[in-house]
Amino acid sequence: MIILGIDPGIATLGYGVLQKDGNGNVAAEDYGVVTTPKQENLAVRLAMLEEGLNALLDKVRPDEVAVEELFFSKNVTTGIAVAHARGVALLTCVKRCGRLFEYTPMQIKQALTGYGKAEKRQIQLVTANLLRLKSVPRPDDAADALAVALCHSFTSRLSGLYRI
Amino acid sequence: MIILGIDPGIATLGYGVLQKDGNGNVAAEDYGVVTTPKQENLAVRLAMLEEGLNALLDKVRPDEVAVEELFFSKNVTTGIAVAHARGVALLTCVKRCGRLFEYTPMQIKQALTGYGKAEKRQIQLVTANLLRLKSVPRPDDAADALAVALCHSFTSRLSGLYRI
Repeated sequence: MIILGIDPGIATLGYGVLQKDGNGNVAAEDYGVVTTPKQENLAVRLAMLEEGLNALLDKVRPDEVAVEELFFSKNVTTGIAVAHARGVALLTCVKRCGRLFEYTPMQIKQALTGYGKAEKRQIQLVTANLLRLKSVPRPDDAADALAVALCHSFTSRLSGLYRI
Repeated sequence: MIILGIDPGIATLGYGVLQKDGNGNVAAEDYGVVTTPKQENLAVRLAMLEEGLNALLDKVRPDEVAVEELFFSKNVTTGIAVAHARGVALLTCVKRCGRLFEYTPMQIKQALTGYGKAEKRQIQLVTANLLRLKSVPRPDDAADALAVALCHSFTSRLSGLYRI
C-alpha cells in the first residue's frame, strides 16, 4: 500500500511517500517539496500548487493520503495563506483518492514519540530512524510530510487491530 | 461585460452577477449562494464548493471576477475553514477567468459609501439602491457578493479613466 503524507504550505508544500507491506513494515519511497514563487499573486500560486500536486498524484498513485492540520499560533497572515493552500491540497487529493485523513501536529508527535509536545528536531530524528534513512530528510517540509505519513501508517494499523 | 462577485465561505458562499454596459451603468443579473452541509468533512465540502462554483461559472461566463478578502478578527477556527474555502474559490475562478481581483472589506465599504468603516446594513442598503432592487438581497452572503462586484465595477471604471 502507498501512503502519501502532505505538509501544506503556500511557498513550500512538503510531501512524503511510504510503501507499507502486509506486515506493517514501512519504507520511504520518495519525498520532496512543491514550491511557488513569492512574487506571484495568491490565485496563481494556488493554481501552481494544484498543478504540482496533480503531477505528484499521477506519479505516486497513493492508496491513502494523510494531511497535517494547521497549527495557528504564530503569524495569522501567514496562517491565512497556508489555509488557502491547504484547502487546495485537500480538494486536489480528495478528488484523486477518497481515503484522505487529517492529523494535528500533536497527534503526529504523540504517534512518533509517545509525547504530544516533542520537539521538532526529535520528530525528524525519529522519522529518519524509523525509515532507516542515513540522515534527516531535507527540507523540513519534506521531513514533516514523511512524519504525517508515518503517523497515519501507525494509526491505521491500530485501527485495523481494533477491528479484529 | 459580466462581473462575478464572490463572498467566500465554507457553509455559505455568496455570489452576485452584474452586467455593466459601455457607459459604466450596472444592473444585477443574478445572485445567490452555494452551500455545503455541516455534517460532511472539510475535504468533501471543498469538493462540493468547487462543483457548485464550476456550475456557476458555466452559466455566468464572467469577464472579470472580484473576490472579497478575509477579515480575520472574530473566530480563528471559523476563519481557517473560510480560508480553505477561499483558496478553492480563488483556484476555481482563476482557472476559468484570468481577470481576477481581490478587495478588502474596507475597500468595499470605501467604494460604496466613501467611508471605510461603514456598517454592514448601510452597505446592503446602498447596494440595493445602486442596483435599483426593491429590497436588500437575501441572504447576507449574496448581498455581500453583489457589493464586492459593485466595488470592482467602480474601481475598474476609475482605473480606466486613469489610463486616458
